Amino acid sequence: MIILGLDPSLSCTGWGVIRVEGSRISHVANGQVKTDAKAALPDRLAHLDTVLAAVIADHAPVSAAVEEVFVNDNPQSTLKLAHARGVALLACARGGLPVAEYAPRLVKKAIVGTGGAAKEQVQAMLRVLLPGAKIAGADAADALAVAICHANHRPRV
Amino acid sequence: MIILGLDPSLSCTGWGVIRVEGSRISHVANGQVKTDAKAALPDRLAHLDTVLAAVIADHAPVSAAVEEVFVNDNPQSTLKLAHARGVALLACARGGLPVAEYAPRLVKKAIVGTGGAAKEQVQAMLRVLLPGAKIAGADAADALAVAICHANHRPRV
Repeated sequence: MIILGLDPSLSCTGWGVIRVEGSRISHVANGQVKTDAKAALPDRLAHLDTVLAAVIADHAPVSAAVEEVFVNDNPQSTLKLAHARGVALLACARGGLPVAEYAPRLVKKAIVGTGGAAKEQVQAMLRVLLPGAKIAGADAADALAVAICHANHRPRV
Repeated sequence: MIILGLDPSLSCTGWGVIRVEGSRISHVANGQVKTDAKAALPDRLAHLDTVLAAVIADHAPVSAAVEEVFVNDNPQSTLKLAHARGVALLACARGGLPVAEYAPRLVKKAIVGTGGAAKEQVQAMLRVLLPGAKIAGADAADALAVAICHANHRPRV
C-alpha cells in the first residue's frame, strides 16, 4: 500500500511517498514544490497542481494524508497556505485519493512518541524510521511524517 | 471581449459572464456552484473545479476577475473560503485566463458609484446595468459586479 503525505504551502509544498506492508514502512520518494514568489497567484497554484498531479501519477498512492490547519498568529500567511492547500486537496480528489487529516500533535506523537516534540526530533526519528532516505528539506520531512502517521492510524483491513 | 467574474466560497461560489463591446456591457450568463456540506472537503473542491472548468469551456472568457480577500471576523470561514478560492484561481490559470483582483470597495464603487454601497444597492444597479438578466442569487450578483468592475478598469486596448 502506497501512501502520499502532503505539507502544503504556497511557497514550498512538501510531499512524501511511503510504502506500507503489514507493519513495515519504507521510503519511496519525497520532494518539495517551490513556486516563484514573483509570479501571479493563479500561476503559482497551477505550478503546484501540475507537479502534484505528476507525483500522484508516478507513484499511484491509494490514499493521502495532510495536517489539519489552524489560523495562526499570521492570518495573511494562513490565507496563502489555504489557497495552496485547496489546490493540494483537489489534486488528491482528482487522483481518486481519499484524504485523511491529522492534528499536528498527533503527527509528532506518531513519529517521536510525544505531541510536544521539536521539529529536529521529528527529523531525527525520520532518519531512523526511513533509513537511507534522502529528504529534500523540512517540508518534505513534514510530509513524510504525516504519511507515517496515516500508516499507523489507518484502519487495518 | 468576454469577462468572467467569480465570487468564490466553499458552500456557494457565484460566477458571472459578461460581454464588453467598446463601452457597452451585456449579460451572457451567471450561476452558483453549491457544494454538499456533508461531503469531504476534497470532493467539494473537486465539484467546484469541475463546474468552473465547464463554465470556462462554455463561454471562453479572455480574462477573469475576483474580489480581494481579507481575514474577517471569522477566521475559520476565511480558511474555508481560501481553499475554494485557490481552486477557483487554479481553474482560471488552467483555462489560460489572467485574473485581476479588486478590493470590495472598488467593486461597489464601479457599480453604484460609492464604495460604501449596501448589497441591495449593488443588486438594484445590476438590474439596471444588465437589463433582463436572471440573476441566480446574491453570490452570482457579486460575481457579475466584479466582472463589470473589471470591464471598467481593464486597460483600453
